[in-house]
Amino acid sequence: MYEPDTIVALSTAPGTGAIAVLRVSGPGTQQVMHAVVPSMLLTPQPREAVFVRLRDAEGAIDEGLLTFFPGPNSYTGEDVAEVSVHGSPYIQQRMLEALLTAGARLAMPGEFTQRAFLNRKLDLSQAEAVADLIASGSQGAHKLALQQLRGGYSRQIEGLRDQLISLSALVELELDFGEEDVQFADRAELTQLLDGIVSICDVLIGSFRYGNAVKQGVPVAIVGAPNSGKSTLLNALLQEDRAIVSDVPGTTRDTVEETISLGGVLFRFIDTAGIRNTKDTVEKLGIERSYKKASEASIVVLLGDAATLSEGAFHTQAAMLRKRIGDGPVIIPVLNKADLVPAVQVNVGKVVKDAREAKVAKEAVRISAKSGAGLDQLKDLFTEHVGNLNTSGSDIVVTNARHVEALTNARTALLSAKKGVEDGISGELLATDLRQAQYHLGAITGQITVEDLLGSIFSRFCIGK
Amino acid sequence: MYEPDTIVALSTAPGTGAIAVLRVSGPGTQQVMHAVVPSMLLTPQPREAVFVRLRDAEGAIDEGLLTFFPGPNSYTGEDVAEVSVHGSPYIQQRMLEALLTAGARLAMPGEFTQRAFLNRKLDLSQAEAVADLIASGSQGAHKLALQQLRGGYSRQIEGLRDQLISLSALVELELDFGEEDVQFADRAELTQLLDGIVSICDVLIGSFRYGNAVKQGVPVAIVGAPNSGKSTLLNALLQEDRAIVSDVPGTTRDTVEETISLGGVLFRFIDTAGIRNTKDTVEKLGIERSYKKASEASIVVLLGDAATLSEGAFHTQAAMLRKRIGDGPVIIPVLNKADLVPAVQVNVGKVVKDAREAKVAKEAVRISAKSGAGLDQLKDLFTEHVGNLNTSGSDIVVTNARHVEALTNARTALLSAKKGVEDGISGELLATDLRQAQYHLGAITGQITVEDLLGSIFSRFCIGK
Repeated sequence: MYEPDTIVALSTAPGTGAIAVLRVSGPGTQQVMHAVVPSMLLTPQPREAVFVRLRDAEGAIDEGLLTFFPGPNSYTGEDVAEVSVHGSPYIQQRMLEALLTAGARLAMPGEFTQRAFLNRKLDLSQAEAVADLIASGSQGAHKLALQQLRGGYSRQIEGLRDQLISLSALVELELDFGEEDVQFADRAELTQLLDGIVSICDVLIGSFRYGNAVKQGVPVAIVGAPNSGKSTLLNALLQEDRAIVSDVPGTTRDTVEETISLGGVLFRFIDTAGIRNTKDTVEKLGIERSYKKASEASIVVLLGDAATLSEGAFHTQAAMLRKRIGDGPVIIPVLNKADLVPAVQVNVGKVVKDAREAKVAKEAVRISAKSGAGLDQLKDLFTEHVGNLNTSGSDIVVTNARHVEALTNARTALLSAKKGVEDGISGELLATDLRQAQYHLGAITGQITVEDLLGSIFSRFCIGK
Repeated sequence: MYEPDTIVALSTAPGTGAIAVLRVSGPGTQQVMHAVVPSMLLTPQPREAVFVRLRDAEGAIDEGLLTFFPGPNSYTGEDVAEVSVHGSPYIQQRMLEALLTAGARLAMPGEFTQRAFLNRKLDLSQAEAVADLIASGSQGAHKLALQQLRGGYSRQIEGLRDQLISLSALVELELDFGEEDVQFADRAELTQLLDGIVSICDVLIGSFRYGNAVKQGVPVAIVGAPNSGKSTLLNALLQEDRAIVSDVPGTTRDTVEETISLGGVLFRFIDTAGIRNTKDTVEKLGIERSYKKASEASIVVLLGDAATLSEGAFHTQAAMLRKRIGDGPVIIPVLNKADLVPAVQVNVGKVVKDAREAKVAKEAVRISAKSGAGLDQLKDLFTEHVGNLNTSGSDIVVTNARHVEALTNARTALLSAKKGVEDGISGELLATDLRQAQYHLGAITGQITVEDLLGSIFSRFCIGK
């Protein structure tokens, strides 16, 4: 399947630390390590950390710890050595050069995990979870990645696929008796299985909106008329001065992005140029970009100035916004500077697009970005919105766009097969649909292997993993 | 001596990597680790890397490798655990928090190595070498730090100190017989020993000029008249465009510093403002700074424009430079733009200050900073100069200012003791000098322990070491 050679990489973060770890994997691991550790035993004690002196042709490099993990009971399934040295960039570089000179090759990004997959230590979905786990920056993203690493829905998918294969085999068998019009595969059982798999696909596909938001961060665009306090709100949310704040309307031309974690979920806040009628070409471009950013967001905060804005004008703004950004994002109407005016209820029910959204946006939230009043209520609405996204109500959450694509393709093939059964189509056409569905389900855990597919997955990794 | 508690730190460089390592040390190591690894055995196999699942009260954190090093056979001499996890900043932070919650305390910089010293796993000079090793950025600095880590001159110093102690004890014994005028300590043997230790101190102190240059980088100042091509030379040496180059004389006002490694030694190049008579106040300040930087350098490159400069003017510049910078630095006269004029020998023998320097600066080096001609010869002179600094001619090199101070103090006491023997002073005064010498020699390896001394040494470390 692949010609294994011996690879090496620095596995810890680059830079200066107390220690750094280099990792070697492949059939030549012992030979390569022996070149830099002449004292190494011919049969090192498995998994035992041994104090060693490391050297190259120039002389001593360092003293460190060497641990040898003989395959197949290692991360990659091959012979692996980990060597822990003092964490100076000079030593890291010289160790790497010494191991390359000794016959190892510099590992490509993700190549250690790719080998773990090829040696069946991890399935493809688990291998992808390793990269997600390292990249995850919030409690929510971390939890989902760890669930996927531990198997997640892989086993469920594989179980369904196995059942599908069994029934498909019977359908394929019918083809051998093509002239005789026999039916080995019970059509009722087949329909029931197809229904079952489709409904699981639906749940998983539906969970992606939530999973993706948690993994990538939930985009929240803040839009409103100039000088309604968008930058002040962003700063208040971030509790630092990131955006430039001034009293001159139209200060923010470029969009600004900052992230914070609320309730274990990462939110990406997007400050935008103020929206108004203007002849200024540069400002117009900024406003267009505001609408575009808003249409790509998951939540749009429509900010009005409570001191100057009439309820009617706010409704007009909301309606205009909905028209420009489409049905995707939820709109949360917010009245800023509410400390300056008496309490006025602004009902913007018209702009909410469904019952779920209405629950969030039943009325404008009254805040003061300057004093911080109302901000906690606003933050609660953000996390409530993310909770609403998880329609599956279960822990089974898809975070990977590739998986959603595979599930969607599988679903299409399954529905086609189901319709075929109902219409009594030929076994041959039915078998084709079933094979398609198996292929796409198998793509999730990597039971089909296409070189391009692998390349695109593992290139996301950092070197040394 | 100290009340050991249990400390924890991230030992690998901060940031994202494939893996990160956290280290725990102290009597509570097993208990702390058990809180995050419930599956840990009560008596874990020493030094064996075990696959474990890590958790806190919130739930699963990660899967990783746990290695337990029972004291005293560990880095610190205490029970130590190393846990290797996926290298996401989120996981690193959460693991750290989990271990703190479990009862560990965040380690202070260098605290792991401090404990190694306190538990006699390393002497003080070796402990200092750990920090030097991690900080070393060139082959030369790395080699000296590694030599010191492996014992270096520690054992030699300790041997001499032990001999001194034996003879001192006899002198002290004489004091008990104060009235009787006996001599247990052979004065000839004592004088011979004192001479021997003084000469070793001399060699070690003399090696510091070289050791410090190698450790800190050799400062090379480039000075000369405006538009002689100083910035162009710096750029050519660095092979990148660091300094701003223009045809307007006086472009460089601030001093610019860049480092490169030549022949395994780090050189710190300092570009300076052009030196000339001027009324411009700002420029005058820049010129003063040029002289100051030059006086602090180890090498001063005096750059002249071969196309416009007369030999006499170059000599005047060199003499002026020597007057302003003192006898410390070596001056290497260099004629730039030598490709524009026919070969002219410029003898600047007058400005060299001794035979060693004359060897380097026997005549002006002819270069073209623009074409690169002559640069290799110039670089060779730089490394030759560093070689000349190592007057000890041996591998025993002191790189540590604290050691030089201790050696200098020891030397003073030893010479005083020697003079005392010659003058036949009282045993009491002699014993005082000998005790002083022992104290200062002991300070190098830490056989005396002063809290302040320890604090100042270990605060240089990174946390986790």
